[in-house]
Amino acid sequence: MKVTALLGERFKNAPSDCTIESHKLMVRGGYIKNMASGIYSLYAPAKRIAKKIENIIREEMDRIDAQEVMFPVVMPASLWEESGRYTSIGSEMARFTDRGGNRLVLGMTHEEAAVHLARNTASSYTQYPFTIYQIQTKFRDEPRARGGLIRVREFTMKDAYSFHTSQEDLEKTYARFYEAYERIYRRVGAKNVVAVKSDSGMMGGSISHEFMLLTDIGEDTLAICPECGYSANMEVASCEIDNEAGEVEELKKVSTPGVKTIEALKEFFGIDEKKFAKAVVYQRNKDDSYLIVFIRGDLEVNETKLRNYLGEEVHPAAVITEESGIVAGFIGPIGLDGGLTAVFDKSLEGINSLVCGANEQDFHYTGMNVERDVGKVDYVDVAKVFEGAVCPVCGKPVITVKRGIEIGNIFQLGTKYTKAMNMTYLDRDGEAKNPIMGCYGIGVGRLMASVCEESCDKYGPIWPMSIAPWQVEICNLRSTDEAVSRVADGLYETLQNDGVEVLYDDRDIRPGSMFADADLFGIPVRVVVSPKNCDAGVVEVSTRDKSIKTEFAIDGAAEEIRALVAKLLEEYKG
Amino acid sequence: MKVTALLGERFKNAPSDCTIESHKLMVRGGYIKNMASGIYSLYAPAKRIAKKIENIIREEMDRIDAQEVMFPVVMPASLWEESGRYTSIGSEMARFTDRGGNRLVLGMTHEEAAVHLARNTASSYTQYPFTIYQIQTKFRDEPRARGGLIRVREFTMKDAYSFHTSQEDLEKTYARFYEAYERIYRRVGAKNVVAVKSDSGMMGGSISHEFMLLTDIGEDTLAICPECGYSANMEVASCEIDNEAGEVEELKKVSTPGVKTIEALKEFFGIDEKKFAKAVVYQRNKDDSYLIVFIRGDLEVNETKLRNYLGEEVHPAAVITEESGIVAGFIGPIGLDGGLTAVFDKSLEGINSLVCGANEQDFHYTGMNVERDVGKVDYVDVAKVFEGAVCPVCGKPVITVKRGIEIGNIFQLGTKYTKAMNMTYLDRDGEAKNPIMGCYGIGVGRLMASVCEESCDKYGPIWPMSIAPWQVEICNLRSTDEAVSRVADGLYETLQNDGVEVLYDDRDIRPGSMFADADLFGIPVRVVVSPKNCDAGVVEVSTRDKSIKTEFAIDGAAEEIRALVAKLLEEYKG
Repeated sequence: MKVTALLGERFKNAPSDCTIESHKLMVRGGYIKNMASGIYSLYAPAKRIAKKIENIIREEMDRIDAQEVMFPVVMPASLWEESGRYTSIGSEMARFTDRGGNRLVLGMTHEEAAVHLARNTASSYTQYPFTIYQIQTKFRDEPRARGGLIRVREFTMKDAYSFHTSQEDLEKTYARFYEAYERIYRRVGAKNVVAVKSDSGMMGGSISHEFMLLTDIGEDTLAICPECGYSANMEVASCEIDNEAGEVEELKKVSTPGVKTIEALKEFFGIDEKKFAKAVVYQRNKDDSYLIVFIRGDLEVNETKLRNYLGEEVHPAAVITEESGIVAGFIGPIGLDGGLTAVFDKSLEGINSLVCGANEQDFHYTGMNVERDVGKVDYVDVAKVFEGAVCPVCGKPVITVKRGIEIGNIFQLGTKYTKAMNMTYLDRDGEAKNPIMGCYGIGVGRLMASVCEESCDKYGPIWPMSIAPWQVEICNLRSTDEAVSRVADGLYETLQNDGVEVLYDDRDIRPGSMFADADLFGIPVRVVVSPKNCDAGVVEVSTRDKSIKTEFAIDGAAEEIRALVAKLLEEYKG
Repeated sequence: MKVTALLGERFKNAPSDCTIESHKLMVRGGYIKNMASGIYSLYAPAKRIAKKIENIIREEMDRIDAQEVMFPVVMPASLWEESGRYTSIGSEMARFTDRGGNRLVLGMTHEEAAVHLARNTASSYTQYPFTIYQIQTKFRDEPRARGGLIRVREFTMKDAYSFHTSQEDLEKTYARFYEAYERIYRRVGAKNVVAVKSDSGMMGGSISHEFMLLTDIGEDTLAICPECGYSANMEVASCEIDNEAGEVEELKKVSTPGVKTIEALKEFFGIDEKKFAKAVVYQRNKDDSYLIVFIRGDLEVNETKLRNYLGEEVHPAAVITEESGIVAGFIGPIGLDGGLTAVFDKSLEGINSLVCGANEQDFHYTGMNVERDVGKVDYVDVAKVFEGAVCPVCGKPVITVKRGIEIGNIFQLGTKYTKAMNMTYLDRDGEAKNPIMGCYGIGVGRLMASVCEESCDKYGPIWPMSIAPWQVEICNLRSTDEAVSRVADGLYETLQNDGVEVLYDDRDIRPGSMFADADLFGIPVRVVVSPKNCDAGVVEVSTRDKSIKTEFAIDGAAEEIRALVAKLLEEYKG
């Protein structure tokens, strides 16, 4: 393709609302155009990259025997009522009513559609397992669309669904997906990717992994052990604690007038914050009733873990009423109002002497020992993991906290959907059972932007050969010169006939502008044809990542360039 | 792929709501599953066909230098307000409000999005022409979804948009699309396709063509001249009439008590219906005011042509009020209430003597001559063309009326959208101008169903090799027999390694069931491996269209089958 024929322009500067590098470069380079919050059109270069990513995904899906199907974008509300998600999902699901008054929704995920397609047709155990997938547009009414294609409302996604008659069989397929995802990321050129255990959130199910591309601009926080390779999303990372028991002391009520915060208490008692049993008040979403989490003073509550433990939605208390029986600032586990639920974090286990509120205005206890003064309690892990925490696998206190972008996820769903939607098969012994499901997603646009984020310099993206919009760019530095153009035109012709994807810049513009544009196109191999080179009988060939800079004799240049492209592609082979 | 691994079942009978052949077969064959009115999921075989059709379309779009982009499915209402279509399009456009209260719509076509993508980036005449296209999901809240994938609400469509600086340039691209569409239809194996002139409807613009697949189940009616090849959609087909002038008579008022219909008048006067000036009453949508069309008694009014002539929406009069001044049953052009608009169809031109109503209860005129008795009027063509009408091109009275399915359309849009949405470029002389647009659509699912409709027998589809879900089906008639399975497995393996797409049925079922399923898969080449054949050292090879039935020696069968596939593919080459 010639640059003159390509729709889209390149810009020196990015608009001020572009805060991350990939967003800036994809706007500056004429890849994407914003239409509304989180809604983009793709220009040809971005569409070409997306298609290449999709094809790599397709190849890897085929390789693990997944069959491509297609679900609708628009679905009837009734289908989502069957699973219960029509009500359990909130305003992130777009809903509308058709001309006949029927309620419809836009698909943000397709578990319901997958069960709809498979039920009634897979009625015998002999027809299992099977895996279906699609690559389709989805819409999620994301309140915080940002970062270009990183967090959007409309997106293209590969979503796969597998169906099984046993947990073991699901685990086999789950493992194959895990490996397929690793291959996909390698093949599209994403480098720093780790798989982390994660919270299944609204998807249901228990075991799940997120594939994270490590980058400072990531929205997710991860706990990673550099010693043993353990990694987990902060949302679910267990927080192992090596408590010092300390001396046993007597329980003593102490007057602490107006001393309410951990900071003030530290100063008042002159002791470390690890010595306090901090109280954090939550309310249940369903009825705003209160519950209190007791946790070591230096730690924070991980609300996802708390929610998972409770099995219901909670939020930090917005207001503490007088009738609640809670004495704000002086809350403690001893003599707490009987109507209140108390949750004890594992970080308090085994500590002999703690400071805590006395449930009485302006009083605290010192020397508190949970077992002795409160009784036997169930300690649960609801603390946020922290830098230097103990690794739950290798036991070393070396946990590091990093940020990442989620570029894929795999879930073991169990029978949540097949049960709710009444999908059954007859087992070997004639018994009707619900199949066990897995689901597996990769967002195409986000993956493209993530690779750009990871693989760029300040001048533009450095696209990996496997997903580059074109493989070679020819820069004709003097298109008004017949001899130069003859060489450049000839190369363009020959390379295209040889099946090489070429972008040809034959505009009559200054070399500086042409090279700036070339940097924004980010095409791996650049061929410069100039009067000086032509006089010397050569063309200049370099790679966008600067690893190669050489000259090829004009005679035979096409063949050498083709070989270079093939060599660079090798790295990303399936 | 093995049939055992394929999701979807085949059925002997279709549900009773399937009224057309392709719908029946695509349900019976496990191609599609209905989720809601006009909303379908596709099983793997249908998805494979769709992908092949899409790839053929892509190749032909690339060939005419169109670049693939991607527009969003969800768009802001504001964009559609710019073009005016947010209000001019009615309930067929799905609308909803996001969590922030912003009004959004689902794309049913993408002219607005195309202008949004191109404006501000194509600001100089030097950047024209260019053509962009996408293959994307669309939603149109069609009130009469029916016929499986023929008329749906959600559909995948290739839509292209071209931008030009002159009408001549648009016409060049328009002609290239016309030819590309002919190649696409030939390559996907659609046989009886004609391009007809059509009404541009809500798209705006003037010149447009629809590509019609001729079939009795078509929803569109076409006027075709078998002599010269002229063809047009009934909606716009001009109706040429060879009127006999007849004798001049005197105007006479005649008492016709209670004689109101053409049928009754024919009997009363004893003359042919061609001798009557029939009055047809319409109302304007905007204010329900009346207008009257006078037309020859044997003809009908074509409402699309009437609407186009008037430049506004009208509907047949629901009720005729007393205040209207209209004497129902006795309406005529002489002495008509001055407030009423009268439209004279060309079919009345040059007739010397007509019978018409006298605008007086129970009276008609005979001998009426429009020019003499009414005055000079503008005759316009608002009549429906009919079997045996005169061809407007070659002049022979041989027009035939056929039915067709619209499987593509191309429109010359002019500056309707670029003007409304303020897209300009600087012309050679520095003047700001609006680019001229064309738009070009093909529905992928409808094309698949149309090919099925045209290419099937009562046992199943007969897919053309170019779009068949697989190229070869191997039927292993005795999968429990080791020797037979060795031959079938080996063929499967070898053919797949040679790049042939194979569906392998190795189920232990009766041959009758296996062949019934094979007919529903509609795969072009069938290879039967049975104990009898194996004993004879051969496999049986036949084509789904019954044109070939032969045997290949087991040794070398793979090579012969591969050659047969290649030969059958030849026909559909680009």
